[in-house]
Amino acid sequence: MNHEERVADAELGAKSIKDLIESYNLIGGFMARNLYDASRVLASMYSDPDVTVILSFTANLVSTGLRGILRGIIERGLADVVITTAGTVDHDVAKSLGGVYFKGSFDIDDSVLLSKGIHRIGNVFVRKEHYGPLVEKAVHSTLSKVNASEIGVRELLWLMADELDDSSIIKASKRSCVPIYIPGFVDGAFGTAILTYNEVQRTRSGGRRINVNVLKDEEEIMNIIYSSKKLGAVIIGGGISKHHVIWWSQFKGGLDYVVYLTTATEWDGSLSGARPKEAVSWGKVKPEAKSAFVLADATITVPILFNYIASEVGFRKRNMGVYPWNCQ
Amino acid sequence: MNHEERVADAELGAKSIKDLIESYNLIGGFMARNLYDASRVLASMYSDPDVTVILSFTANLVSTGLRGILRGIIERGLADVVITTAGTVDHDVAKSLGGVYFKGSFDIDDSVLLSKGIHRIGNVFVRKEHYGPLVEKAVHSTLSKVNASEIGVRELLWLMADELDDSSIIKASKRSCVPIYIPGFVDGAFGTAILTYNEVQRTRSGGRRINVNVLKDEEEIMNIIYSSKKLGAVIIGGGISKHHVIWWSQFKGGLDYVVYLTTATEWDGSLSGARPKEAVSWGKVKPEAKSAFVLADATITVPILFNYIASEVGFRKRNMGVYPWNCQ
Amino acid sequence: MNHEERVADAELGAKSIKDLIESYNLIGGFMARNLYDASRVLASMYSDPDVTVILSFTANLVSTGLRGILRGIIERGLADVVITTAGTVDHDVAKSLGGVYFKGSFDIDDSVLLSKGIHRIGNVFVRKEHYGPLVEKAVHSTLSKVNASEIGVRELLWLMADELDDSSIIKASKRSCVPIYIPGFVDGAFGTAILTYNEVQRTRSGGRRINVNVLKDEEEIMNIIYSSKKLGAVIIGGGISKHHVIWWSQFKGGLDYVVYLTTATEWDGSLSGARPKEAVSWGKVKPEAKSAFVLADATITVPILFNYIASEVGFRKRNMGVYPWNCQ
Amino acid sequence: MNHEERVADAELGAKSIKDLIESYNLIGGFMARNLYDASRVLASMYSDPDVTVILSFTANLVSTGLRGILRGIIERGLADVVITTAGTVDHDVAKSLGGVYFKGSFDIDDSVLLSKGIHRIGNVFVRKEHYGPLVEKAVHSTLSKVNASEIGVRELLWLMADELDDSSIIKASKRSCVPIYIPGFVDGAFGTAILTYNEVQRTRSGGRRINVNVLKDEEEIMNIIYSSKKLGAVIIGGGISKHHVIWWSQFKGGLDYVVYLTTATEWDGSLSGARPKEAVSWGKVKPEAKSAFVLADATITVPILFNYIASEVGFRKRNMGVYPWNCQ
Ligand SMILES: NC(=O)c1ccc[n+]([C@@H]2O[C@H](COP(=O)([O-])OP(=O)(O)OC[C@H]3O[C@@H](n4cnc5c(N)ncnc54)[C@H](O)[C@@H]3O)[C@@H](O)[C@H]2O)c1
Ligand SMILES: NC(=O)c1ccc[n+]([C@@H]2O[C@H](COP(=O)([O-])OP(=O)(O)OC[C@H]3O[C@@H](n4cnc5c(N)ncnc54)[C@H](O)[C@@H]3O)[C@@H](O)[C@H]2O)c1
Repeated sequence: MNHEERVADAELGAKSIKDLIESYNLIGGFMARNLYDASRVLASMYSDPDVTVILSFTANLVSTGLRGILRGIIERGLADVVITTAGTVDHDVAKSLGGVYFKGSFDIDDSVLLSKGIHRIGNVFVRKEHYGPLVEKAVHSTLSKVNASEIGVRELLWLMADELDDSSIIKASKRSCVPIYIPGFVDGAFGTAILTYNEVQRTRSGGRRINVNVLKDEEEIMNIIYSSKKLGAVIIGGGISKHHVIWWSQFKGGLDYVVYLTTATEWDGSLSGARPKEAVSWGKVKPEAKSAFVLADATITVPILFNYIASEVGFRKRNMGVYPWNCQ
Repeated sequence: MNHEERVADAELGAKSIKDLIESYNLIGGFMARNLYDASRVLASMYSDPDVTVILSFTANLVSTGLRGILRGIIERGLADVVITTAGTVDHDVAKSLGGVYFKGSFDIDDSVLLSKGIHRIGNVFVRKEHYGPLVEKAVHSTLSKVNASEIGVRELLWLMADELDDSSIIKASKRSCVPIYIPGFVDGAFGTAILTYNEVQRTRSGGRRINVNVLKDEEEIMNIIYSSKKLGAVIIGGGISKHHVIWWSQFKGGLDYVVYLTTATEWDGSLSGARPKEAVSWGKVKPEAKSAFVLADATITVPILFNYIASEVGFRKRNMGVYPWNCQ
Repeated sequence: MNHEERVADAELGAKSIKDLIESYNLIGGFMARNLYDASRVLASMYSDPDVTVILSFTANLVSTGLRGILRGIIERGLADVVITTAGTVDHDVAKSLGGVYFKGSFDIDDSVLLSKGIHRIGNVFVRKEHYGPLVEKAVHSTLSKVNASEIGVRELLWLMADELDDSSIIKASKRSCVPIYIPGFVDGAFGTAILTYNEVQRTRSGGRRINVNVLKDEEEIMNIIYSSKKLGAVIIGGGISKHHVIWWSQFKGGLDYVVYLTTATEWDGSLSGARPKEAVSWGKVKPEAKSAFVLADATITVPILFNYIASEVGFRKRNMGVYPWNCQ
Repeated sequence: MNHEERVADAELGAKSIKDLIESYNLIGGFMARNLYDASRVLASMYSDPDVTVILSFTANLVSTGLRGILRGIIERGLADVVITTAGTVDHDVAKSLGGVYFKGSFDIDDSVLLSKGIHRIGNVFVRKEHYGPLVEKAVHSTLSKVNASEIGVRELLWLMADELDDSSIIKASKRSCVPIYIPGFVDGAFGTAILTYNEVQRTRSGGRRINVNVLKDEEEIMNIIYSSKKLGAVIIGGGISKHHVIWWSQFKGGLDYVVYLTTATEWDGSLSGARPKEAVSWGKVKPEAKSAFVLADATITVPILFNYIASEVGFRKRNMGVYPWNCQ
C-alpha cells in the first residue's frame, strides 16, 4: 500500500448494491473503506480455483433472518466448510421444525418475558416451547437411529438433516456436501439433548449410550486442511468458531484470504477482537494474505457483501476432490 | 410495538439498495432491524410537509468521501438546517481549495508521517500544506471583506462560500439556503484563523478586529426552532453537534422524528452514546416521536439510508417560509 | 430500586482498595456504580453459606498476570467450579513449564514477529517454543499414563496437574478440589495435542487411542448443578465459558447471584454482550437474583473486586458435600 | 520499548491503591498495562517542574460524584488549566446551588421520567427544577453585575463563582487560579441563559446586552500555550474538550506528556477515539512524548490514577509565572 489513492466525494444516486460498494470505495475512509476492501478480498478469493473456503459464524445470527443468507452462501458453493457453535444447531433446528421467532425489543422487562414463557436473544423473541423441546425431540429421534456406539458431530448433524425442512442450514450443508463442525457442541440445547438421551439410556434396560465424539470431527478438519491447496475464510463474529478456523489454518501455513466481520474490539486482548494482523504472528494468516476486517454488526455487512458476491459470482464451482469422504 | 411481526429468512439475490433495505426488514434482529427502522423513520419524516429537518454530523466524516453525500443531502432539500463542528469547515474548505486527501492506514508509524508532513485522520491522510494554510487563507481573505465589526458564524461561512468550489458543503448550504451552524466554531483551523486575523489587526495601524459572534447564530437557531411546526433530525455521530440539535429541540416540545447514526456506547453515560429514549426524559424527543438509532460507522450506514431516500424521494420540496431571513 | 440514593462528590484521599470501592459508591453513576454494585453482589454471595460459586473466564486473560489472581480465587475457596476455554489450558501449562510471556505491543509489524518466532496475544508476546511444544509435551506425557480408553476432560487436567508447578491454575484446581471444565476443549493446542497423540497411536503397533469424552464432564456439571442449594457466578468475559455457566444454571431455576465483567456490547445481539436481564427471560438468572455487570477490561476490574473480597473474606469455607466425587 | 519486560502473576493480597497499581504492572497486558503506563506518565509529568498541565473532561462526568475528584485535582495544583464543555457549567452550578442528583437506572421508561419531571444522564437522575432554572438564575444574576459590554467566558465563570458554594469546580478554579475554558460554551443551559438574558435586555428599555466573547478565551489560551516551557495533558473523554487541548498544543510543538482516558474507539476515525499516536502526525503530541491511553469508563480509572497521584504527590507546587493575568 503506498497511500497514493485519493479519497473522492461519493454522490447520491447509487441504485444497486454494486453502486453502493463503489461508493464505499470513493468514500475511502474509516469502515466504509474496510468494507470495500472486504469486497475485494472476497472477489479475489472466489476467483481463485485453488482455495478451500471456510465459513464461520456465531449462533445468535441464526436467530435472525440472516439465517437465509448463510444458507444461501452454502447453497451457492461459496463455502466449502462451515464452523459454528452449538446455538446454531438450536436455532436452525427449532426454525426448521416450525419454531417462530419474533421481532422483539432490547428494552423490555425480562421478568415479564419469563412469566410469558418467552426467551430473548437481543431484540429477537422466541417462545420457550418453540425452542428447547423441538431441539430435544430432533436430537433424541436422530440418536435413536444411530447404528454405532460412536459418532462424530458432523455425522450426527447430517443424520439429523433428514428431520429438517429446506430452510435449514444443516440440511443445506448436507445437500451441498459442505461439512459443518461444532467444536463446542455441548454448549446448548443440542449438547444437553445428547446428554439427556444418554441419561435415559443408562437408566433403561437395554439402553444404548452413544458417544458423540468431537475428536472425529477434528480429524476430518485436519484432513481437509492438509488436503487443501490454499485456504480462505469468512469469519463472522468471534469466539470459538472464529478461533477454530484460524487455529487449524496455521497447520497449513496460514490463510491466503481472510475477512473478519465483527463487533469485537482489539484492546481487551481478546481472541474475538484480534485483527488479522495478530493472526500473522501465529502463522494463522500468511503475511502476504489478502485480508480485511470490518467492525460492524454482521446483520448489516453480510447482506451487502454476499448479495454483491452472489450477483458477481452466481454459483461457485467447487472443487470437491479435496474431501476425504464421499458425498454422493 | 406488540412484537407480533416475525423474523423471516432473507435470501441472497437482492440487487438494489431498496432490496437490501427489505432484506434488513426480514432479518429483523440486532442492528439490521434498527437500520430498517431508521429507513422507516426517514421515509415518514420526508413525507411530512410540516417538518423542519435538522442534519448534524461530526467533522471527521468530511475528511472522507461521505462529504459528497452530505452535500447531496443538502442539495436535494433533505435538510433544512445543518449543525456541525469546526473541523467540518476545515476539511470542506481545504478540499474546496484543492486539498487532496488520500486513503491511508491506521497502522502506520505516525512519527514518519510527521516527518513527511502528513496529517492522519483515522485511515485518511492529508498533507499539511493541503490543510491549515488553505483554511487560513480563505478565512483571512473573507474577514477582510467583512463590512461590520460583528458577524455571526453562519454569515461568515456564507460569505466565505464565494471562495469555494461546487464540491463544498458550505457553498451548497448557501446556494440551497440551508443555514449551517458551528456552535463550537473556535475548535479548529477555522477558529484559529479568526484569532490570528484579529491578532494581526491588533498590531497593525488601522487594523480592524472583527468579532465573530456565535450568539448571533444561537438567535437564528432559536428563531428557526420556534417558527417550525414540527421538528425532525438526522444526527450522525455525537459530540457538540448532536447535543446542540436535541438541546434546542426541547424548547419546541421535542423532536417528532429522529434518527441517531453513531458508534458511541450508552453505558459510559455519555451524551454521544445516549439513545433517543434518554432524550425523551428531557423533552428533547417527544415520547410519541418516530425514532431509531443504528450503532455502526456512519460511513457504512449513511450511504445505504440516503441513497435509498434519494431514490424514493428524489428532491424534497422545502417549506422556506419558516426562516427569518431572505435567501434570494 | 427506588432511586432515592444520592450521588455525592467523592474526594481525593482514598488510600486503600476499600476506600476506592467506597468512592465508587459515592460517584454513583456510569460504570463506577456498576463496579460498586458488583462488589455488593460478591459480598452477599460470599456470605451466603448455601451457594455454589461458578467462576468462568476467557483464555486470553491467562496470558497476562491476571493468572495469579485467578489462581488465588481458587486457592482461597472463592470458587467451587471453574469453566473456561481451551486456551486457558495452553497458557497455564506453558507458563507452568517455564514459558515466559513478555510485555509486548499492539502496534507492531506482525510479520516481523512471525519471522522472529513470536506469538502475539494483544499486547502480550510469547516465543513459539514457549507455547505449543510445551503443551504438546505435557498432554502426550499425561495421556501415556491414562489407564482407561475413555477419560473426561477434567480428569485429564487433574492428571496433568502432576506435571505442573505451583503457579498453575489447573494444579490449584486439583489441590483445592475445584473442578475445572472446558466445554470447547478441542479448540487450542490442548485439543490438538490430544488429536496428535491419537494419530500417533493409530499408526503405531500396539498404539492405544484415548477417547477424551467431554460428555463425562457434562454429567459432572449436571450433578453439581442439581446438588447445589443455590447458584452464584462470576463471569469474566464472554464466549462459550460464559454461556456454559448460565446455560446449566437454568436447569436449577437460575442463578441467585451473578456478576458479569466484560467488554462485550449488547446491541449486536451477542451472547457475550447480553446483560444479566436477558438471562432472566431464559430462566438462567432468577428475576430476584442479586446481579451486576461492569463493562470494562477485566484486567482492570478483577484486581479491584477480588483484592477487596480477599481482604474482606480472606479464605472462604467451602461446602464440599455437594460434589459427587471424592477429593482426598 | 524492547519488550524484554516479563508478564508476572499478580497475587491476591493488595491492600492499597498503590499495591493495586503495582499489580497492574505485573499483570502487564491489555488495559491493565495501559493503566499502569498512565500512572507512570502522570508520575513523570508531575515531577517535572517545567510543565503546564492541561486537564480536560466531558460534562457527563460532573453529573456523577467524580466531580469531587475533578475539583480535588484543581485544588491540589494538579492542573494548571481546565478545558471542558458547557454541560460542566450546568451540572456544577446546579449542584452548587442545591441541585440533588440521584442514583438512577439506564433501564427505565423515559416517558415516565418525563411525566415526573426527571432528567436522565445515563444512570443518574436529576429533577428538572434542580437543573435548568438554577443555572439560569445564576447566569442572569451574574450577567446583571457585568460592567462591560464584552466579557470572555472564563471571566464570566469566575464572576459567577461568587454565587457558588465550595463544592464547585468553577469556584475551585477561581480560588486556585486555574483558568477554565469552555470553547463550546453555547451548547447547554449556560449558553441558553446568556441568550435569554440578552433577549430580555433587547426588549427592555435601558436593557444592556452583553457580548460573551469566546475569542477572548482563545487569546488567553494562546498566551498560556506560548508562555509554557513544556506541555502536559490529562484528557478525560473526547469531543471538543479533548480536541481543544491537542489542537492548541501543536502550536508549541506538541505535548510532552499526555494521558487519554476514554471509551471511544479508534476505528470510526473519530477525533474522540484517536490515540495519542494519531496526534503525533499532527504535531499535537511530540514523537518522544511520554504518553498512554486507557480505554475504560473514566469513573473507574480516574479515581485509581488520581488517588494514587494524590498520595504520591500531595499538593503540587505550581509555577504561576506563566499566566498573563493577576490572580491575587
Ligand atoms: N475530526 C476532525 O477531523 C477534526 C478536525 C478539526 C477539528 N475537529 C474538532 O474536534 C472536535 C471533536 O470532533 P467532533 O465533535 O466533530 O467529533 P468526534 O470525532 O469527537 O466524534 C464524536 C462522536 O461521534 C461518533 N462518531 C464519530 N465518527 C463516527 C462515525 N464514523 N460513525 C458513527 N459515529 C461516529 C463517535 O461516537 C464519537 O465519539 C470538534 O470540536 C471538531 O471541530 C475535528
Ligand atoms: N485467547 C487466547 O489466548 C486463546 C488461546 C488458545 C485458544 N483460544 C481459543 O479461542 C476461543 C475464543 O476465546 P475465548 O472464548 O476464551 O474468548 P475471547 O477472547 O474470544 O473473548 C470472548 C469475549 O469475552 C470478552 N473479553 C475478552 N477479553 C476480555 C477482557 N480482557 N476483559 C473483559 N472482557 C473480555 C470480550 O467481549 C470477548 O468478545 C476459545 O475456544 C479459546 O479456547 C484462545
